[in-house]
Amino acid sequence: MNLSLLTDFYELTMMQGYFFNKSDEEVVFDYFIRNNPFNNGYTVFAGLEPLLENIEKIDFTTEEIQYLKSTDVFKDKFLDYLQNFEFKGDIYSVKEGDVVFPNEPLVRVKGKIVEVQLIESLLLNFLNFQSLIATKTARIVQAAGDDPVLEFGLRRAQGKDGALSGARASYIGGVSSTSNTLAGKIYSIPISGTMAHSWIMSFDSELEAFQKYAEVYPETCVLLVDTYDTLKSGVPNAIKVFQDLQEKGIEDFGIRLDSGDLEYLSKQARKMLDENGCEKAKIYASSELDENIIEELREKNSPIDAWGVGTKLITANPDPALSGVYKLVSKNGTDNYEPVIKVSNNPEKITTPGIKNIMRFFGSDGIMKADLIYEETEEEKLEQRIKNQDRITFHHPSIQYAHFEMTNYTGAEKLLQPVMENGEIIANQNNLDKIQQYCKERKNSLHSTHKRFLNPHAYKVSLTTNLNKLKTNLIDKYRQNSTF
Amino acid sequence: MNLSLLTDFYELTMMQGYFFNKSDEEVVFDYFIRNNPFNNGYTVFAGLEPLLENIEKIDFTTEEIQYLKSTDVFKDKFLDYLQNFEFKGDIYSVKEGDVVFPNEPLVRVKGKIVEVQLIESLLLNFLNFQSLIATKTARIVQAAGDDPVLEFGLRRAQGKDGALSGARASYIGGVSSTSNTLAGKIYSIPISGTMAHSWIMSFDSELEAFQKYAEVYPETCVLLVDTYDTLKSGVPNAIKVFQDLQEKGIEDFGIRLDSGDLEYLSKQARKMLDENGCEKAKIYASSELDENIIEELREKNSPIDAWGVGTKLITANPDPALSGVYKLVSKNGTDNYEPVIKVSNNPEKITTPGIKNIMRFFGSDGIMKADLIYEETEEEKLEQRIKNQDRITFHHPSIQYAHFEMTNYTGAEKLLQPVMENGEIIANQNNLDKIQQYCKERKNSLHSTHKRFLNPHAYKVSLTTNLNKLKTNLIDKYRQNSTF
Repeated sequence: MNLSLLTDFYELTMMQGYFFNKSDEEVVFDYFIRNNPFNNGYTVFAGLEPLLENIEKIDFTTEEIQYLKSTDVFKDKFLDYLQNFEFKGDIYSVKEGDVVFPNEPLVRVKGKIVEVQLIESLLLNFLNFQSLIATKTARIVQAAGDDPVLEFGLRRAQGKDGALSGARASYIGGVSSTSNTLAGKIYSIPISGTMAHSWIMSFDSELEAFQKYAEVYPETCVLLVDTYDTLKSGVPNAIKVFQDLQEKGIEDFGIRLDSGDLEYLSKQARKMLDENGCEKAKIYASSELDENIIEELREKNSPIDAWGVGTKLITANPDPALSGVYKLVSKNGTDNYEPVIKVSNNPEKITTPGIKNIMRFFGSDGIMKADLIYEETEEEKLEQRIKNQDRITFHHPSIQYAHFEMTNYTGAEKLLQPVMENGEIIANQNNLDKIQQYCKERKNSLHSTHKRFLNPHAYKVSLTTNLNKLKTNLIDKYRQNSTF
Repeated sequence: MNLSLLTDFYELTMMQGYFFNKSDEEVVFDYFIRNNPFNNGYTVFAGLEPLLENIEKIDFTTEEIQYLKSTDVFKDKFLDYLQNFEFKGDIYSVKEGDVVFPNEPLVRVKGKIVEVQLIESLLLNFLNFQSLIATKTARIVQAAGDDPVLEFGLRRAQGKDGALSGARASYIGGVSSTSNTLAGKIYSIPISGTMAHSWIMSFDSELEAFQKYAEVYPETCVLLVDTYDTLKSGVPNAIKVFQDLQEKGIEDFGIRLDSGDLEYLSKQARKMLDENGCEKAKIYASSELDENIIEELREKNSPIDAWGVGTKLITANPDPALSGVYKLVSKNGTDNYEPVIKVSNNPEKITTPGIKNIMRFFGSDGIMKADLIYEETEEEKLEQRIKNQDRITFHHPSIQYAHFEMTNYTGAEKLLQPVMENGEIIANQNNLDKIQQYCKERKNSLHSTHKRFLNPHAYKVSLTTNLNKLKTNLIDKYRQNSTF
């Protein structure tokens, strides 16, 4: 599908306005989030590659132009321009799968104002949703410890793409497999699934349904045991089938609990399975699970081996939207780029001006210490100071008097890397397994206090002295005028 | 995109199981919801047409078959069958835009078990999401009274289709327009939008930005006034521009408030506009709105004329998933169809067996009185009794002793109508304006007590005496066995 028109209409009305006023002006926009979702201590950044692919493909065909013409809002000269439109900007971004924090410039887009404005809605739609789901998944996977988490969300996802790109994001966040066959095909994610209640109900008895299933799938026999009565019917029938399979030398089977009290049922079922020689049977659990329920069930030593998580993962319940925004931070001034700011009565909503990057500092244990946002123009100096192991002052991004000195770091890493140049993708990981692995490493390098579910320790994101001064000066400048 | 594989993997493993055991068995599945979302008094049914179109298009091409082959789960004979697969079932459904209730069979799918099972995930994905968003929108539109509601959700939607089919569903639910240009094109929904903060920030002053905008769009000039300071800068600058437009004879303009306290700011702004001869200027409001905030602002007489609603509408916050399910209700018995039941320790989770339809009873005021679920076999008799204005007994669907007599009704309407026959769409409204209009009429025929946001009066959905007996008998039959 051509997504060129997947844009808020105001992007197009603004574009036409720019086109007739200053079509060649160069600007820089930043994508950043204002808060971590779920009161989490971090956000997993995801959605970049599909976004870049779609930006590269933007193309207004005659059909799109005809539609825009029919709105009677656009002049022919502008429509002619659109017909030949290609995005030619430069994009810097943090890597997919990285752990990131509020107020950091995660993606930086530079180019002609008409081009950079157009992609706003597309960028926000892709990055907000996938980062949200990857973050929710990271929480669920953390709660499950070393147990596999299976993504089951298709039937309750917000539309077909909620299911598809949601499955992609959840794989980055750490699930082992998806139930969504098309997502498996498109993204090379392992797929899994066995049976629904309808399988059981379509046979004359539960035992017959189990036996027939074991006949067709002797090697992957996971039996759903709650259609009639989990402990009185489902588990005893499953045991009969497992005993038959064991006689054939097969020991890779299990049951799935999909309703009722999962602590009670898993403990009772485990006991019944063990007492009947089915010690190797695995117990899968599903049924409105989320990170809090999984954590609680594991704390109570529920003998559950794998977790099927659907609705609450794929819709990011209870925070179904990520508050990522895309803001102008620099424009053509008299002397090339001129940083700009959006002020607000709420200090946390004031943007950080200028063309920036992020330096992440690590301690000797490989643990992330803090992130420092700096202006690109000070990069060489900063790198030299890091090499020299100099102390570096970190300023709080909105509280004037709050700052600290960074010492005892063993290294630092620049987070924004070029990913698109002149409209062409120049970096492509394209292997979801690698992104998942990278995400895991980054989560591991985050101190455990930042990973508590409740009231986590806030990871520090700071400004350099130079950037802090730039921001303060711009705020002062705007505050001195009563009207603008 | 070919959506044939947009299915949970277990549908395919079950299909293969059925294929080798009973590929010709005919079954009936029902789609129904267990609860209204948001504790609302009703649900708006939506998503049917796109679903039917996608069912008609199901086609496993060589690419899909190759992918399934690569999983090593399927036998060649089954894959050959899939390669020639076409959905040939019959579908009955309530109309899109209708108001519906928990436990009613909203869609009834009849056909070979292999075919009817396959479409489960697709059906649930489409109907759950669109019905959810249409219902959320109905609440928001109700709160806004006669004011237009503009859908602004693209940037925070759950993926591209969350935005696209979400826009479609929100139009059914009653919004006046969408900001999503592609949704406008695909579904013929009116589109709207003016400017973002970046437009203002890209100029040297707010006044210049407003003036330039009014030059390009004199007829649709809605100015965003909160970039620097709403009352000190934004509104005064807007007034200057409006006075210029008025001199040219143009009076169709407005401001948009996008942050701060909307009651205070709208009242102050209205006063400033009126005192400066801009009585005709409209006030648009946006900023994390939902039905509760809109209701509160209108109760306080905030002079807001139109509402831009994004995040909370398009993600159905705080209930981002609808609990619709798809359950086997009838299968091939010895004597043709045999009703089946899924029992549960929770009486509300017990399904209603058999091939059913819904009769909706109306009073003399045109107001909906109650819905009655009946077995298709009793339709003729029921229609005769309705014609005769006989009393009809309504049984509670899960509480045995609860029933009442329906009298004083003036008419009744059968809700499930055939929409697909032998795999082909046979009913097609295809005009979203008509569906929106139908939804409005149906909401109007619902008594106001069912439309309260908090603790609404529960609309009665009952079973006929015959259906109630069938259900009770089947429960007894299953309860008598300890294992099945």
